[in-house]
Amino acid sequence: MAELGDIQPDIEDEVYELTRRDVSALLAAVELGDRTLLLELMEPMHAADIADLLEQVSSSERRALIELYGVEFDGEILSELDESLREEVIADLRPEVLAEAVRELESDDVVDLLEDLDAPQQEAIFEALDDADEMVARQAMSYPEDSAGRLMQREVVAAPEHWSVGDAIDFMRNSEDLPEQFYHVVLVDPRMRPIGNITLGRIMGAPRAQPLSELVEELFEVIPVEQDEEDVAYAFKQYHLISAPVVDDEGRLVGVITIDDAMIVLDEEHEEDILRLAGVSEGSLTDRVINTTKRRFPWLAVNLVTAILASLVIAQFDTVISDFVALAVLMPIVASMGGNAGTQSLTVAVRAIATKDLTGSNVWRVIRREVLVGAVNGLIFAVVMGAVCVFFFSPVLGGVIAAAMVINMVVAGLAGTVIPVLLEKMGIDPALASGAFVTTVTDVVGFFAFLGLAAWVLI
Amino acid sequence: MAELGDIQPDIEDEVYELTRRDVSALLAAVELGDRTLLLELMEPMHAADIADLLEQVSSSERRALIELYGVEFDGEILSELDESLREEVIADLRPEVLAEAVRELESDDVVDLLEDLDAPQQEAIFEALDDADEMVARQAMSYPEDSAGRLMQREVVAAPEHWSVGDAIDFMRNSEDLPEQFYHVVLVDPRMRPIGNITLGRIMGAPRAQPLSELVEELFEVIPVEQDEEDVAYAFKQYHLISAPVVDDEGRLVGVITIDDAMIVLDEEHEEDILRLAGVSEGSLTDRVINTTKRRFPWLAVNLVTAILASLVIAQFDTVISDFVALAVLMPIVASMGGNAGTQSLTVAVRAIATKDLTGSNVWRVIRREVLVGAVNGLIFAVVMGAVCVFFFSPVLGGVIAAAMVINMVVAGLAGTVIPVLLEKMGIDPALASGAFVTTVTDVVGFFAFLGLAAWVLI
Repeated sequence: MAELGDIQPDIEDEVYELTRRDVSALLAAVELGDRTLLLELMEPMHAADIADLLEQVSSSERRALIELYGVEFDGEILSELDESLREEVIADLRPEVLAEAVRELESDDVVDLLEDLDAPQQEAIFEALDDADEMVARQAMSYPEDSAGRLMQREVVAAPEHWSVGDAIDFMRNSEDLPEQFYHVVLVDPRMRPIGNITLGRIMGAPRAQPLSELVEELFEVIPVEQDEEDVAYAFKQYHLISAPVVDDEGRLVGVITIDDAMIVLDEEHEEDILRLAGVSEGSLTDRVINTTKRRFPWLAVNLVTAILASLVIAQFDTVISDFVALAVLMPIVASMGGNAGTQSLTVAVRAIATKDLTGSNVWRVIRREVLVGAVNGLIFAVVMGAVCVFFFSPVLGGVIAAAMVINMVVAGLAGTVIPVLLEKMGIDPALASGAFVTTVTDVVGFFAFLGLAAWVLI
Repeated sequence: MAELGDIQPDIEDEVYELTRRDVSALLAAVELGDRTLLLELMEPMHAADIADLLEQVSSSERRALIELYGVEFDGEILSELDESLREEVIADLRPEVLAEAVRELESDDVVDLLEDLDAPQQEAIFEALDDADEMVARQAMSYPEDSAGRLMQREVVAAPEHWSVGDAIDFMRNSEDLPEQFYHVVLVDPRMRPIGNITLGRIMGAPRAQPLSELVEELFEVIPVEQDEEDVAYAFKQYHLISAPVVDDEGRLVGVITIDDAMIVLDEEHEEDILRLAGVSEGSLTDRVINTTKRRFPWLAVNLVTAILASLVIAQFDTVISDFVALAVLMPIVASMGGNAGTQSLTVAVRAIATKDLTGSNVWRVIRREVLVGAVNGLIFAVVMGAVCVFFFSPVLGGVIAAAMVINMVVAGLAGTVIPVLLEKMGIDPALASGAFVTTVTDVVGFFAFLGLAAWVLI
């Protein structure tokens, strides 16, 4: 435990990780107040790594570092920073540093930044932007939260359908500010409705005289501006999109989403699913104790209720337990095996629902499979546990625990699949709520089957 | 339950999902043996959706569909198909259909396909390729599994450092087969070592006479061919890369990885983490019952051992339990609350390790925070549960359960953070093994603290 602090990850994992040495060197420079050294150390670092660094140090170290770093503070660091820290860091920045930092950002990054801030901080950022950028940002903020409209960049390269390769190249050469990032030219009709995507690679490889319309990509997904970002991310993953045009209600081109933004959404959705499955709502390592405590509280409260429910089942059998105390010793085993089997089934089901692999077409097949898996594993462990009990306790108790185990693991497979599917059907996120329901079922069924059978056989 | 089959997802989730109607219509065409209708229905479908369809139907339906589909079978469907089904589907394809399907694929997709096949099926695919493609595929297979070498495509557009924009455009125009997908031109020195990346967008916007070297992107990550694909995916996500050159031991350019491939790896890693946290090793909905049973077995076996361990703790207190049967009723509550709090902490820790946010620099701060969160929530629930017990049982029992709850939830926060960190340090995947250890700790400590305190106070 004493060396826990200096984790030496194996070589494989060392890649791209901030080392303790990097962090110590930077903090030493901050402590010395040596701005030249600090800038020198930070110069080669990517904004994403600087953001990670700010997340890993304590809040006083963070404030000192930002203060010393001063006007060099890069807007991208704010974009990369964990949402829980943005407010704090923005509050630490001097207004002129903030203004400078924000002006460098692309429109979609500004929007991403604005989303998580309080109204006064939002206003500070709006003020830092020039008029045109401010208008763009305000308009983006008018789209629903977590929608394609918030995710897209407004900078698009569009071309009329009758253009040739040469026309497009000349247009781009003469264009004053092309987007920082673009991979396609979007072909549009006279009403600005996108009719095709052309990768830059194809334009590059084609003669100047060739019409753009001959180079259009086969697959073409158009994203409605109100679409949920989760569905956007799914489309990018499923159809291997690199960029996709975003359209308004009338089908007119209003922006473009690129795969790097979709990848971040995909990553966030995953994070959310993992944490929700464990009963932890969004949050991060940099949250304060009080916030984290609050966030974990609801799930623990639900768990307390379900645990009390299970203990009420036990209470029904208090006389038989006081006569046969072995029941108290053995009963948690039945509940625990059911709980684990149920968690396995529900995790698979929740994932399959999220990836749209579990649908109306195969739900019955999946349920049947989970029940069968529960039955087979239940039988195997019933034999093992039954034998142990016959040896240490009695044949009767061996039979009872074996039967209860099979029952509970079959129920676990059933509940682990049916509960997430039903929750999804009712519009409740199955990742969030399934765990509580499934473990309640397996606890109650486990205790009831075991103690009930025991009472019936032993009395 | 009767309508479980016709899940009507809310509108939001309907997007991009195969509807039951689509599936039924296709299966009806297969049943009728109506090839024209089948082709008509499948014509607008993306290969990824066809693969999903094949995953969702039963294996006899799958075989009939593939048989009727015949020579139209698209190689990309194989790429998109879940690994567990590839072998089966490839075995169902007639050799000439397989050969045709595979020849259409890009080199990285062929390699992805080869990876999961048995040697005879691999040979069948090698034979289907022409000599040049076969050589490329065999060489890629010589790189370690899950390495950048397996992930990359060999088709790269490279340019000498002295070229101008015009040189590059002319080269691409005259090039016979440009890669299907490319977003950068890689600038190389005379020994083919990459020295910079230029996005096509910048080339497009620049005059013909401008030297390429003036357009080079600031950030430039070069991926070693042996690097683990997990680290590759991390680099793409962290640094917002779109494509990155891959180099051999001598630093020479051997291929390029694009973000769409990195996104798939990221997705797979997440999937693996979620499933491992629930004690389910990789697998899919289409696996047979026997395979799924086998895969879930080890974790359940571990759980049985830990449950028995916990019950041995209970057995030490059998006399006090038979005197005070309320202890048997209440003890699962203490263990369950600890188990849940521990799972919350460990999930956060496992995720933070995976995203390189939990490192040597902040490990002590995180441990302190988790312990504090455990203590605060422990105190709150101790008061609640203590009060309940004072009311229904006795003040003494209320005090005992309150004390045990605080102890167990503090231990949960500690174990939930320290165990994943130590496992990672020992080179064991924390996602895989943490759960078993942490729940063992919380069960044992929970039962021991509660029953031990009770025995001490009550006897």
